[in-house]
Amino acid sequence: MEFLYEILKKGGVSGDESQFSAFILDYVLQRRNQWKVVPEVYYGEGFHDNIVLKFGRPRTAVFAHMDTIGFTARYENQLVPVGGPDVNDGDILVGEDELGPIECSVKIVDGNVFHDFKRSIVRGTNLSYKQEINLDDEFIQAAYLDNRLGVYNALQLCEDLEDGVVVFSTYEEHGGGSMPFLVKFMYEKWQVSQALISDITWVTEGVKHHEGVAISLRDKYIPRKKFVDRIVGLAQSSGVPFQLEVEGAGGSDGREIQMSPYMIDWCFIGAAEDNVHTPYEKVSLKDLASMIELYKYLMVHL
Amino acid sequence: MEFLYEILKKGGVSGDESQFSAFILDYVLQRRNQWKVVPEVYYGEGFHDNIVLKFGRPRTAVFAHMDTIGFTARYENQLVPVGGPDVNDGDILVGEDELGPIECSVKIVDGNVFHDFKRSIVRGTNLSYKQEINLDDEFIQAAYLDNRLGVYNALQLCEDLEDGVVVFSTYEEHGGGSMPFLVKFMYEKWQVSQALISDITWVTEGVKHHEGVAISLRDKYIPRKKFVDRIVGLAQSSGVPFQLEVEGAGGSDGREIQMSPYMIDWCFIGAAEDNVHTPYEKVSLKDLASMIELYKYLMVHL
Amino acid sequence: MEFLYEILKKGGVSGDESQFSAFILDYVLQRRNQWKVVPEVYYGEGFHDNIVLKFGRPRTAVFAHMDTIGFTARYENQLVPVGGPDVNDGDILVGEDELGPIECSVKIVDGNVFHDFKRSIVRGTNLSYKQEINLDDEFIQAAYLDNRLGVYNALQLCEDLEDGVVVFSTYEEHGGGSMPFLVKFMYEKWQVSQALISDITWVTEGVKHHEGVAISLRDKYIPRKKFVDRIVGLAQSSGVPFQLEVEGAGGSDGREIQMSPYMIDWCFIGAAEDNVHTPYEKVSLKDLASMIELYKYLMVHL
Repeated sequence: MEFLYEILKKGGVSGDESQFSAFILDYVLQRRNQWKVVPEVYYGEGFHDNIVLKFGRPRTAVFAHMDTIGFTARYENQLVPVGGPDVNDGDILVGEDELGPIECSVKIVDGNVFHDFKRSIVRGTNLSYKQEINLDDEFIQAAYLDNRLGVYNALQLCEDLEDGVVVFSTYEEHGGGSMPFLVKFMYEKWQVSQALISDITWVTEGVKHHEGVAISLRDKYIPRKKFVDRIVGLAQSSGVPFQLEVEGAGGSDGREIQMSPYMIDWCFIGAAEDNVHTPYEKVSLKDLASMIELYKYLMVHL
Repeated sequence: MEFLYEILKKGGVSGDESQFSAFILDYVLQRRNQWKVVPEVYYGEGFHDNIVLKFGRPRTAVFAHMDTIGFTARYENQLVPVGGPDVNDGDILVGEDELGPIECSVKIVDGNVFHDFKRSIVRGTNLSYKQEINLDDEFIQAAYLDNRLGVYNALQLCEDLEDGVVVFSTYEEHGGGSMPFLVKFMYEKWQVSQALISDITWVTEGVKHHEGVAISLRDKYIPRKKFVDRIVGLAQSSGVPFQLEVEGAGGSDGREIQMSPYMIDWCFIGAAEDNVHTPYEKVSLKDLASMIELYKYLMVHL
Repeated sequence: MEFLYEILKKGGVSGDESQFSAFILDYVLQRRNQWKVVPEVYYGEGFHDNIVLKFGRPRTAVFAHMDTIGFTARYENQLVPVGGPDVNDGDILVGEDELGPIECSVKIVDGNVFHDFKRSIVRGTNLSYKQEINLDDEFIQAAYLDNRLGVYNALQLCEDLEDGVVVFSTYEEHGGGSMPFLVKFMYEKWQVSQALISDITWVTEGVKHHEGVAISLRDKYIPRKKFVDRIVGLAQSSGVPFQLEVEGAGGSDGREIQMSPYMIDWCFIGAAEDNVHTPYEKVSLKDLASMIELYKYLMVHL
């Protein structure tokens, strides 16, 4: 849990993931020697801020995005959203520009977002929610559970993964654009044709806290039924608690796998949260545990 | 016409085309020995549920999508649309889940779609319009004319096609995503740089029943003028009745050809229908005949 | 300036760029022998109407789109927009169909666009704003400054460019679709991983006439912060006047670089205009001069 706290404290607005990426890379390079299988690690300028780990003989890839929602400073105290923050008047934002660290509040006027910082902020500076983590026996509540928990899940998986690819991607929250490269790289190198999206979804009337990890049968995009049926069958065999989700909206890195010129099946699997894209996203610890367990099972049996 | 009835009776909601695809494949594998040229047939897991036929030395490819619009069962009797069904209260839907066959009616409440089936339907189950075919001397009326007629046209074309590629694709009605693979496969293998989209369009104030197949000069996307001008010139020489269509909205598999990293010209050519995406789509038999004739002419002369 | 007048007088609605492309190609082929470095020129049917110039050992590519906004003639005097023209009642449009040259006015009825030409116009014919150029000491005002000025900038750059790729692209104003090919071509051939978008942006409360070329830190899409920070650093060293732009909407050829399966950094750099997508777009001559200067500096130092 200590490590989870650490990654929750780090920012990484879409397009500006380099610090967070360097942190994850550092962790991986130090930690991988204790893992059951030592993966090959792909990173560096040719990967921009993405990281790819390759274990054994991969059949399935896991994608976890590293970026978060946030804001870009514009002119006259205006803020332009990055991703779709569900921001409220008074939410506290933090960031840093050449003149020093920034902490300010959000003002919403006629649907437009402003900051109240005492000086103007250098154009193009990214701000994001101030982190405040609350943990009790049942829940974790914090900003950026989407997708720090997905990253956490992927790294837990690495502990005893034998065969598979684990990808830490950028830009998911805002327009995408690193997935086409990552999918091409992974498919052309290892012909991996199955993908799981390690990300966080929504609590709804059909997906509830404490009832297990959600397997998404569709969102705005529709994975191949043949593949999700197979996943559901395996989940049933696994004994891990899970719920089936059906949505008409929302998307994930799965979209870019679907749109890629490779025949790769994909499925989104993740715990559900309340208060999506606010500073107080909330996830059941049981659901997080189920998520980790189900990924471990699927990476062996898929 | 018997064969057309047969394919109209089969479902195949986007993402769930495997049964329909198996049926078409079976037909192709049995029938191809009577065709003028016996094509190479590409299919199987590496193609998901898509099918590619290659005849002779291809210069032009024909794309016909196999999927239909429909609905996915969600929670609490809710239905999430697949594609853009133009559904009305009382329309009858059919499908099947683990508990057995389903037939139910649509209820629309505040713009949301519900079913009235006597039990809950397993999450993720696909439903689609109950088929009812009406044929007279002038018209065929049925669900799924879009795009069972496009598939029918493509298969009629196969009877005496000498050079060309014929592709049966998935996912057209909902987000797309198999075309990037198909275009890459076809272009890299045979450098085919011309494509026709065998699909059904709309009756409007400018495109009317019985006046011939429609050649679309644009929809939401704009094919290269040089290419559509050439098609129109050939259509004039052919003597086949045709109409010119100009739309600002709507799309087809042509979109993904346009967006592909290959320089492939494309043009949508298809009969027009009334009552688009309802259970009673209606197409003029004369226009369907013109469609088949014009495709046969173009595949020789393009 | 004479050459700029010449290219401003030529049309080239998205999808219909062949004449304008032929003109630019002709200019390049004649002029290139006087340039400091004679580039390799790539064009022809395999490139549709795009043109690629390769100078020396390229590290950075410049993209300038050749197409303009406009309209397609539909039925019953209706016009369908190409791109997003900001058209007003009475604006004058020109074009040509098989029956001869066309000059007519726009009528807007209930948000729909009609023409008042004395005869019907052949379906699919493209129309665009009648050109009227006004030049004084401070400003140029005309239709199509977006993106004739971007093309002009790219050609000025060619005069003494040593290393780089210069691309004249099609379809930018309406849906895109030639960039995926161009990016693939350029990256696979020369591994160019930096791109500048030579295009025109908007005057806003933060970007004003006469204050220098605008460097866009983001629009609807977000370039990698690491790269735009580097560009801003170089711009500061250059001594060329520039402004920083931050937008939440709008797009450019940069979008398709972002979405490509290649890890290519990109940044939009261009002068700002008033009256975007009208017949009287207006750009400061100082800003145009800064644009040309900054491109020359960056192509050496990036």
